[in-house]
Amino acid sequence: MTNPTAILLVSCPDQPGLVAKVANFIYANGGNIIHADQHTDASAGLFLMRIEWQLDGFNLPREVIGVAWKAIAQPLNAQWELHFSDETPRIAIWVSKQDHCLFDLIWRQRAGEFAAEIPLIISNHPNLGAIAQQFGIDYHLIPITPDTKPQQEAKQLELLRHHRIDLVVLAKYMQVLSADFIAQFPRVINIHHSFLPAFAGANPYQRAYERGVKIIGATAHYVTQDLDEGPIIEQDVVRVSHRDQVTDLIRKGKDLERIVLARAVRYHLQNRVLVYGNRTVVFA
Amino acid sequence: MTNPTAILLVSCPDQPGLVAKVANFIYANGGNIIHADQHTDASAGLFLMRIEWQLDGFNLPREVIGVAWKAIAQPLNAQWELHFSDETPRIAIWVSKQDHCLFDLIWRQRAGEFAAEIPLIISNHPNLGAIAQQFGIDYHLIPITPDTKPQQEAKQLELLRHHRIDLVVLAKYMQVLSADFIAQFPRVINIHHSFLPAFAGANPYQRAYERGVKIIGATAHYVTQDLDEGPIIEQDVVRVSHRDQVTDLIRKGKDLERIVLARAVRYHLQNRVLVYGNRTVVFA
Amino acid sequence: MTNPTAILLVSCPDQPGLVAKVANFIYANGGNIIHADQHTDASAGLFLMRIEWQLDGFNLPREVIGVAWKAIAQPLNAQWELHFSDETPRIAIWVSKQDHCLFDLIWRQRAGEFAAEIPLIISNHPNLGAIAQQFGIDYHLIPITPDTKPQQEAKQLELLRHHRIDLVVLAKYMQVLSADFIAQFPRVINIHHSFLPAFAGANPYQRAYERGVKIIGATAHYVTQDLDEGPIIEQDVVRVSHRDQVTDLIRKGKDLERIVLARAVRYHLQNRVLVYGNRTVVFA
Amino acid sequence: MTNPTAILLVSCPDQPGLVAKVANFIYANGGNIIHADQHTDASAGLFLMRIEWQLDGFNLPREVIGVAWKAIAQPLNAQWELHFSDETPRIAIWVSKQDHCLFDLIWRQRAGEFAAEIPLIISNHPNLGAIAQQFGIDYHLIPITPDTKPQQEAKQLELLRHHRIDLVVLAKYMQVLSADFIAQFPRVINIHHSFLPAFAGANPYQRAYERGVKIIGATAHYVTQDLDEGPIIEQDVVRVSHRDQVTDLIRKGKDLERIVLARAVRYHLQNRVLVYGNRTVVFA
Repeated sequence: MTNPTAILLVSCPDQPGLVAKVANFIYANGGNIIHADQHTDASAGLFLMRIEWQLDGFNLPREVIGVAWKAIAQPLNAQWELHFSDETPRIAIWVSKQDHCLFDLIWRQRAGEFAAEIPLIISNHPNLGAIAQQFGIDYHLIPITPDTKPQQEAKQLELLRHHRIDLVVLAKYMQVLSADFIAQFPRVINIHHSFLPAFAGANPYQRAYERGVKIIGATAHYVTQDLDEGPIIEQDVVRVSHRDQVTDLIRKGKDLERIVLARAVRYHLQNRVLVYGNRTVVFA
Repeated sequence: MTNPTAILLVSCPDQPGLVAKVANFIYANGGNIIHADQHTDASAGLFLMRIEWQLDGFNLPREVIGVAWKAIAQPLNAQWELHFSDETPRIAIWVSKQDHCLFDLIWRQRAGEFAAEIPLIISNHPNLGAIAQQFGIDYHLIPITPDTKPQQEAKQLELLRHHRIDLVVLAKYMQVLSADFIAQFPRVINIHHSFLPAFAGANPYQRAYERGVKIIGATAHYVTQDLDEGPIIEQDVVRVSHRDQVTDLIRKGKDLERIVLARAVRYHLQNRVLVYGNRTVVFA
Repeated sequence: MTNPTAILLVSCPDQPGLVAKVANFIYANGGNIIHADQHTDASAGLFLMRIEWQLDGFNLPREVIGVAWKAIAQPLNAQWELHFSDETPRIAIWVSKQDHCLFDLIWRQRAGEFAAEIPLIISNHPNLGAIAQQFGIDYHLIPITPDTKPQQEAKQLELLRHHRIDLVVLAKYMQVLSADFIAQFPRVINIHHSFLPAFAGANPYQRAYERGVKIIGATAHYVTQDLDEGPIIEQDVVRVSHRDQVTDLIRKGKDLERIVLARAVRYHLQNRVLVYGNRTVVFA
Repeated sequence: MTNPTAILLVSCPDQPGLVAKVANFIYANGGNIIHADQHTDASAGLFLMRIEWQLDGFNLPREVIGVAWKAIAQPLNAQWELHFSDETPRIAIWVSKQDHCLFDLIWRQRAGEFAAEIPLIISNHPNLGAIAQQFGIDYHLIPITPDTKPQQEAKQLELLRHHRIDLVVLAKYMQVLSADFIAQFPRVINIHHSFLPAFAGANPYQRAYERGVKIIGATAHYVTQDLDEGPIIEQDVVRVSHRDQVTDLIRKGKDLERIVLARAVRYHLQNRVLVYGNRTVVFA
């Protein structure tokens, strides 16, 4: 899409007239809707909506859209986000020693699959510095030990601020973030190498092999204080057999991890994901 | 859903304000939207929408909803259908000798997966009459030969009229319907035992085996004059290997055929399918 | 396959010459191998093999094949089973209130997908008696309460003996079998309505919905003393979204359960499954 | 596998004793079989086998294994290949302008997924020269026009000889090879961006979109004189919907192409693929 669009994400208590009120707001100001999707969770009594319209010919200048919308949103007790398709989010990729997700994310960004910049890579190991250099991305080695964790997380947060990072992607970072960190920077996506909730925690492929499952999976989720318990954005699976050793599960899993993580990041960057409770609505 | 809903399917030339106009029509009359989905085909300049709302508390009696909506639809050059969730469509299942799809459709209807009645089975062979009897469904044997086709199709149309049939499901009927028949009764869903457009025509499993494909599929589509060329509603696939003989492809294919046909019939019965040109939009 | 075959399942400590010794035994007696597959679990130091050959032209009468083979197997410390393709295993299907797996298994047996007989249905509820009657299968209502379990399991075992049952299929039986029962009758396949080990135990669909997973699954496994911990034979999955309510997960899951259970039963009936430890090798 | 193995691929007219003869050859010389798989195509009367054993402790030096085996193979009218796991095949990757498969293949080779070297990249466009340089791979720009094709193919063959290439991988080369080229260098794997035989030829994604399919695929196959008609090695698919534009099909297809091509190349490199007629047996 060459001409820019506005994207409004809304969640509020369900009630009649919500679609009409949102649509009227856009129509009354001359906007042309190019995507609208909604969901009502009856049990939660919650209405969730994503609506996207062209800024060309929209009467409100973008800096006042939020203010104008706020007047409508407030009486609805709506939580909402307003985004513009020509904003370019900034991603920090956190890695450990494995490079497959890092390579994949950088390739997709270069290929134009992600409308985003990747100015920063953080790692607790030096191994992938050469890749960062090769692509001209700032690389910071921040080793973590139980003792140094608080200071090191402070450094990490400072880097995120300095690079004006919008999203952290844990691309096989293999480290737990503290509750305090998440509280200060909640927009973190992690790829877990299992079909959660199966094999949460460490060594999922080893445990999948031991359990003798016939299918393995990967799960991309937002990071919360509870390890591997965050809202799931995307999952996928691949078939395995008795011929597959643990090393084969790891190899097959890498393809899953790359694809599942990439889908989740793309959904997030396109503002297609709404979180409520411990669940997501993905307006794919 | 216990309390009844109205479902409006709309397709019209794309233009600003469409969502607002539809949503306002419902809101202004006190309706509560429980599902709304839309799609714009930019290349076709076409807007397509499905919107469903509760009749409880809706100010317009159902017999005048269409009239009231027509006043809005006409200036939009909109094609539209209005359905009510408590209407019970009537299905005729057409079969030949194979029983797997017939059994499956009947079981799903009995199990409540389909909000529909199945008062009629038509076949060009006597083989499945016992099943019809077992479930108390009217069974008509109408053999077809090139010479008798016109008269026999006349009989078939008469039966559809007599049983007030809304949808014909070709559950492995293995016969081509004439253009004239389709013109008089266009609401026909067929299951084709291949991943169309691969292996259109006869003996797809034999040809899939000969080609040495590693995956086979099934396709549910609306029937048009051009055999196997109708709008695709649903497809799915299953993996095969060199160990699978043609008989194995047939066996594996039967599971696909049952599931793909059932999904397509369910989408149709829930008024989730819009057709334009030779394509479908399925608001699943 | 019209002309009968012999199937030998072997597992023994890995050592050189195993394939040669088995193949020679068959070749020396004029047998023609039509299927052979093997697997070595290096970590377990275990060799597993399935070999199938035509009885036509085999010099040993079938009643002495076992004796002759024993002389070779003993020095190898091999565990083994000998089966003949024209033996017809007898299946007892155990159900509770849900009929989808029962209908499916009976249909497949009638359609010739299973080379087996189904002379017995056992249930703890009366609901499905009519289906048993319709297909002329012996139906026994054996309600279970914590107090009556021992006596009732004794009745069940007596029925299995009386009907000379080779395999029990728990087709949504929804009851735990006692360790004592399993010890006396170990050949039991169960279908669990989740992607084990995720959501082991009760109400997996409810819990899958609450966890917000994007994929659900089903698992067929041999029953052991540890509930939902038995060796997995087959698994498969289907994608779900935020639009799917618990009832949709149940509906979609039913299709999975039917297919996954049918595959597992077929593998077992064709003597393609070898169990060791808590794992299976499926020579599909 | 650290210690080297020998791999024997055999295909010959079916007859009793084949498994025994092959297994005895290995056992008699002190070999330990670590993988054996076979298939009989009854309709073709053909027996196909892959057998792999450890060279450690094998009595025959590797240079005489072929000679010794030939004495057994000849009376069986067997076609056969002998490979050693510590041989390192040499791959030439042919590309046009798209880089996703090239990047993926190089990454997998660097990651150790392929036991092979990639000394040569050939392209009809200059676009991907920088990638070749970045990874230190020899890059040759050989533009093709109808007039220059014969001379240019001669150049290509000369490069393959000079670099002692064992396998050519067409990683989105988008050019047809002449029958003459194939006759001189038959070991060529191509990735076609459709679920063959659907949408053979040009612009498959455009045509898939126009046909309104609900699933798209990719196919890896050996190249023969007949475009897109060669023996299929591997296929896979991904679901699409009305929301996916042609650009989305292309994007989703790229992930398929990378994975399907990588699987096919790996099967080939591990000598797991046997071709007969226009089919493959993949002993995965």
